[in-house]
Amino acid sequence: MPGQSVGVVQSQRAHFDQALTLRSGGVLPAYDLVYETYGTLNAAKSNAILVCHALSGHHHVAGHYADAPNNIGWWDNIIGPGRPLDTDRFFIVGLNNLGGCHGSTGPSSLNPATGKPWGADFPIVAVSDWVEAQARLADRLGIDCWAAVVGGSLGGMQAMRWTISQPERIRHAIIIASAPKLSAQNIAFNDVARQAILTDPDFHGGNYYEHNTRPMRGLRLARMLGHITYLSDDQMGEKFGRELRNGSFGFDFDVEFEVESYLRYQGDKFAGYFDANTYLLMTKALDYFDPARLDGGDLVKAMGRSHPDTGFLIASFTTDWRFTPARSREIVGALLANQRHVSYAEIDLNFGHDSFLMEDAHYHGVVDAYLRNIKL
Amino acid sequence: MPGQSVGVVQSQRAHFDQALTLRSGGVLPAYDLVYETYGTLNAAKSNAILVCHALSGHHHVAGHYADAPNNIGWWDNIIGPGRPLDTDRFFIVGLNNLGGCHGSTGPSSLNPATGKPWGADFPIVAVSDWVEAQARLADRLGIDCWAAVVGGSLGGMQAMRWTISQPERIRHAIIIASAPKLSAQNIAFNDVARQAILTDPDFHGGNYYEHNTRPMRGLRLARMLGHITYLSDDQMGEKFGRELRNGSFGFDFDVEFEVESYLRYQGDKFAGYFDANTYLLMTKALDYFDPARLDGGDLVKAMGRSHPDTGFLIASFTTDWRFTPARSREIVGALLANQRHVSYAEIDLNFGHDSFLMEDAHYHGVVDAYLRNIKL
Repeated sequence: MPGQSVGVVQSQRAHFDQALTLRSGGVLPAYDLVYETYGTLNAAKSNAILVCHALSGHHHVAGHYADAPNNIGWWDNIIGPGRPLDTDRFFIVGLNNLGGCHGSTGPSSLNPATGKPWGADFPIVAVSDWVEAQARLADRLGIDCWAAVVGGSLGGMQAMRWTISQPERIRHAIIIASAPKLSAQNIAFNDVARQAILTDPDFHGGNYYEHNTRPMRGLRLARMLGHITYLSDDQMGEKFGRELRNGSFGFDFDVEFEVESYLRYQGDKFAGYFDANTYLLMTKALDYFDPARLDGGDLVKAMGRSHPDTGFLIASFTTDWRFTPARSREIVGALLANQRHVSYAEIDLNFGHDSFLMEDAHYHGVVDAYLRNIKL
Repeated sequence: MPGQSVGVVQSQRAHFDQALTLRSGGVLPAYDLVYETYGTLNAAKSNAILVCHALSGHHHVAGHYADAPNNIGWWDNIIGPGRPLDTDRFFIVGLNNLGGCHGSTGPSSLNPATGKPWGADFPIVAVSDWVEAQARLADRLGIDCWAAVVGGSLGGMQAMRWTISQPERIRHAIIIASAPKLSAQNIAFNDVARQAILTDPDFHGGNYYEHNTRPMRGLRLARMLGHITYLSDDQMGEKFGRELRNGSFGFDFDVEFEVESYLRYQGDKFAGYFDANTYLLMTKALDYFDPARLDGGDLVKAMGRSHPDTGFLIASFTTDWRFTPARSREIVGALLANQRHVSYAEIDLNFGHDSFLMEDAHYHGVVDAYLRNIKL
């Protein structure tokens, strides 16, 4: 791997007293955002990059903690001195979004009105709400304008939303493995995952915290299903094929094929630490995301709300069947129709939707080249 | 629709006293098969066609019952006088496979050893076991050799298995929207569906009959997930798009998008009548199907076990992403390498995997033309 890790990092917490009215109509009277920063903000405050996380991500994007050297950030491979998000040059900010379960205010936080966890009462959050909360964090950090907002998948949707909601505050958007809105099939997969959680007897209408239990079965199924959609068919075939765990058929319902073992392991691990209410909220934010909706479904008009000087890097992966390259090309087309500055890369990588998290010389080279051209 | 329905039909029951040793090692000491026939067996007994059902199918393939005119067979559109499976010419047999829940011996049947439903003790059944049971039914009906064995999806796998296991008893195999074995992704989807059922607290280790309950939640999820894989992304988009049930976002976890409404309805309906243990067995039969396995994975060698005079019609659908045309072409390639008589049709239909159940002039024309050329 070229470049280096940022090394030891620390997370920080910002408290906001100003109420936030959400798109759903719900109100958060006050909230915390947990975040991390890497690199140094320059005197002109012109070198800040915001990294937005996807469904199960959080603020720990790069580096590791002094007391937990194996807890490495989820996008460590792209951030650090000499890496594409070069901390010798940029000041990188990562946060846990509202509704999350990694320290920012979310369903497992205490509701000040009741003194109990929010649970089912936590309001539905939308991508535009996250952008608003991120803008307030930028204010707090003294950042008037991001050099770039970067994200993959749901993270890319936040970058897209920034260019529409806060066009004066973003100079570049890097939108990877994303889509301008979910397809019916995307929504369908999300709904099966949600139904798995909502119908788990341990869900207790979202107030499972009070019952000292968690809907592990439902969350496990949701994650297993999600994993299938994150990987490519080819990759699964190459990685697992029809390999048997024990060499021969067991003719029972225990694990037989390696792919079953993998999925169940991933499901169990995830269900062990992730909060089911957060999972529900994140999938809803995905479903609702549709920035063209207020323009009558006209994506060209919606993207025309971006600043004429904002630059865009759109990247997609050939084997991503969750958000196919065609979905990224919809964004590219809408930007070109507005004569925006767009670079587009369709990258041949075999990891399906998860490609955006992978280290690949070509993929990272594209991001690196784009960011090196940014003047600070 | 050209041609006519077969009209009123009756199901029949055949009891078999001869024990059947299954591929899993399990033994069924005796069993019943429920079946239906349409048309008339000719004197030479040379005009019989076996229709094999897929995951959730059964013996009621065509026509309707006198006392239930709306209960129309699942493949009625292709069977009847003047239809591709022409009952003026052919004698059609449909049955419910072993392990089923529509009358043939299955997990909800009484285990003679205990006097209670088989439940979890019902042995795992494989496609090759179904072929053996179907051969015994053929004996009972006086059919030495099928003019054709026909099936879509898992039904096509049975037709394929017939050509290998009983090469002297099948003159033509019509294998539609099928595959020579499941991919890792196919198995993964099946495993998520099974885990939904197996982890449902109402499953009771498969012995839910004794608890007067049924794992409806798990079965519902399994069916919702299955449905996504049966439809094409495009078709879902055209049928549902992002249409909202009530015109605007509800910002809650009730049904919002039409596609959610559709999936939950399908899931609820299915969970209301289908047996969860049967669902588990059928998905396992899919996973295990791999006729090349005993030939070291060599499909050419496996298909070489078919009779040199057996004819094949292989058909696939362009939008089927569960069993893509590429999977059908694997079968075609293995047959051509053996110089078998093969016709192959790749049909442009927008209904995904479910296309095989649809009425379409081109698709039905292909089957019709093939069957018209069969000499009796």
